[in-house]
Amino acid sequence: MDARGIGERSDAVLRTPIPAHDEIMSSTISPLAPESFPEMPPVAGVQLATAAAGIRFGGRTDVLLALLAPETTVAGVFTRSKCPSAPVDWCRARLKGGSGNANALVVNSGNANAFTGKSGRAATKLTAEITAKAAHCETGDVLLASTGVIGEPLDASKFSGVMDRLVAEATPGRWEEAAQAIMTTDTFPKGAASIIRFGSSVVTICGIAKGAGMIAPDMATMLSFVFTDAPIAPAVLRTLLRQGVADTFNAVTIDGDTSTSDTLLAFATGAAAAHGFAKITRRSDPRLAAFRKGFFAVLADLAEQVARDGEGARKLVEIVVEGAVSKKSARRIALSIANSPLVKTAIAGEDANWGRVVMAVGKAGEPANRDRLSIWFNGIRVAHKGERDPAYDETAVSAAMKKPEIALKVALGLGKGSDRVLTCDLTKEYIAINGDYRS
Amino acid sequence: MDARGIGERSDAVLRTPIPAHDEIMSSTISPLAPESFPEMPPVAGVQLATAAAGIRFGGRTDVLLALLAPETTVAGVFTRSKCPSAPVDWCRARLKGGSGNANALVVNSGNANAFTGKSGRAATKLTAEITAKAAHCETGDVLLASTGVIGEPLDASKFSGVMDRLVAEATPGRWEEAAQAIMTTDTFPKGAASIIRFGSSVVTICGIAKGAGMIAPDMATMLSFVFTDAPIAPAVLRTLLRQGVADTFNAVTIDGDTSTSDTLLAFATGAAAAHGFAKITRRSDPRLAAFRKGFFAVLADLAEQVARDGEGARKLVEIVVEGAVSKKSARRIALSIANSPLVKTAIAGEDANWGRVVMAVGKAGEPANRDRLSIWFNGIRVAHKGERDPAYDETAVSAAMKKPEIALKVALGLGKGSDRVLTCDLTKEYIAINGDYRS
Repeated sequence: MDARGIGERSDAVLRTPIPAHDEIMSSTISPLAPESFPEMPPVAGVQLATAAAGIRFGGRTDVLLALLAPETTVAGVFTRSKCPSAPVDWCRARLKGGSGNANALVVNSGNANAFTGKSGRAATKLTAEITAKAAHCETGDVLLASTGVIGEPLDASKFSGVMDRLVAEATPGRWEEAAQAIMTTDTFPKGAASIIRFGSSVVTICGIAKGAGMIAPDMATMLSFVFTDAPIAPAVLRTLLRQGVADTFNAVTIDGDTSTSDTLLAFATGAAAAHGFAKITRRSDPRLAAFRKGFFAVLADLAEQVARDGEGARKLVEIVVEGAVSKKSARRIALSIANSPLVKTAIAGEDANWGRVVMAVGKAGEPANRDRLSIWFNGIRVAHKGERDPAYDETAVSAAMKKPEIALKVALGLGKGSDRVLTCDLTKEYIAINGDYRS
Repeated sequence: MDARGIGERSDAVLRTPIPAHDEIMSSTISPLAPESFPEMPPVAGVQLATAAAGIRFGGRTDVLLALLAPETTVAGVFTRSKCPSAPVDWCRARLKGGSGNANALVVNSGNANAFTGKSGRAATKLTAEITAKAAHCETGDVLLASTGVIGEPLDASKFSGVMDRLVAEATPGRWEEAAQAIMTTDTFPKGAASIIRFGSSVVTICGIAKGAGMIAPDMATMLSFVFTDAPIAPAVLRTLLRQGVADTFNAVTIDGDTSTSDTLLAFATGAAAAHGFAKITRRSDPRLAAFRKGFFAVLADLAEQVARDGEGARKLVEIVVEGAVSKKSARRIALSIANSPLVKTAIAGEDANWGRVVMAVGKAGEPANRDRLSIWFNGIRVAHKGERDPAYDETAVSAAMKKPEIALKVALGLGKGSDRVLTCDLTKEYIAINGDYRS
């Protein structure tokens, strides 16, 4: 972890202050939130509008419409839940093989339209029809996502009251409003942007995300939508997305719970072709190296913001596992630590309780040798080769544990596999939030 | 769930009031605790003594010695952690293939002697030597278990100050004192007994257990010691124990965390041979049916008590999964529900949040069909065939959720596999306990 905190940010990711967003949500903003919503430029070919359709919440926006240029390509990854929501089923059916084309995206908060049976399927169809009619596109080119309560029927007719206005008002660059409209228990809107220069051409990537609980890696782990004006063939976009998600959204866990609604969609409008940026049609295109860097930086930034907004979180925790027999094994051990309630409560209590880390390593079921294990908290080695580090200074560790960002490193001493996941601590506020909120 | 609450108890399990045990522990006794410690008869061939050796706690006992008749056989199951404690390694080395003979058992609380390297191995050896000398037996016939803080060196020399007295004072039947001496964050001592008649012979089974956190099934999930005077060959005892643990201790989860120290030992002193009970040497022995029933009842009772003492628990939760493709699949789904922080916090909030149950079913990775799923809370069907039950009465369900015992049933509608696990809710008290206590 460098001096800037957990996680490297691409220099191309922009951040400038914007007005406070605490008028939207009554809950306290996470102490781990970025200082402000980043400055995010418009993406040519993407127009955004939000409305308050009264899906569940009062006094706030709860519908987002993104209108997309005619040639827009899209790739998606979705929850691996065996009980996915109706909008996930809808998107999967539209994106055969994980990619395709799209002209509009409609996202609502307040109701996940999950476990809603036939009426849920009917609601997705009706939403797409209402949108297609207003936006003058095909029903099959409308993608959908919903987040909020599971099991309550979604009254899609509410969209008809606002859709014409959404289409009329859609404007480029309204990222923060878009990010706010899709929030549920989030305490701040999440956005990230990257600008990449290719000679005289400039390509922009902007993304938004929501997610604070029911977050565990097994696909996209929340809702996130990333947009670029680069023209990219569907198959190439799909490959980029699948590569990018592995070490970003799939390496974040808040509570080990996997949503029924997790959806990550990447849209490429192709508008940059107008100023001479030729379409990327092959995975060997030399421009992909730079594009990939910016694209992954946006995904990593959004994923980190999800961890920073973990329900009740007071500490952002980066878990690095080194010396495992493989990267896959390192990931499993890192997740075992990250999902351990005892490790997470110890960190909440500012206790460098490496005994619980040993426990979590031991229960992962992966190769580990107790007598080779070393453990560090924020750079201080507390355990070495299977015993308490003789030089272990309780005072120094106690001071380090008071920081809002905790880097927990485990060296297994077995091989060269390493991996990293992000999580947060487990506090009484998590219980308060989830003992009341019906999700 | 019958009128007597979750879990059937064998009629042979005895329960009568005893003095309050709240002088031992300062924490509030779990509201789910049994009314009293059960009446437990002596087991011939087992003598018990406890002492305050000052391992970690002040003002309470922290060492248990069980002296066992010369011909005692023993079987054990242990944590599957890849980082087991030194006493687990010690017992495994003594019980080749999982069973053998023993003359003494020493258990201490306050220090788990886990992740203590060479000094940990030396401490087990020294403890066994001190015990063997005082008890006039072989070092290799002493079994050990430790529970408490991980990673702190255990000063085994403290045992030498108390061992002679423990041997001198060891007396049959001191079960409650024994159960108290091995407690850590437990709020009540755990014991269970069963008496089985075979014609004119009577065989007794008595067990004690400790465990309240770091409880997840993957072996024995805590410390438990079960004693019988029946003469049973080691291999038969091992089979009984492995069968018995599957649906008892391995079907309990508090927090999904697996201890480095989990140990379940079953001792058969053989003393009943003195009044004509011939040794059980074959798995086909007809007396095993009755013995198994009593033995499993003791294991089930102790395992339920562990769930009732889950850290911070206010509700005991029985999760039944039916209609899965196999029992194994049902178990995985039940554990996914039982370990879901969102399901557990909803139950703490007395919210019949079946949406989160759907989520937990979906993330289990086992075959499930959303549109065939039905869910009940305390007998009230809230969801049916993939949708909210049309007859679902929120008021009735709210009243049912206020009960201290919650039966959550999920019917998958796929096959004939069913299973049951026990857990508890997740409350702010769990966070308080584990944000402070160093384990």
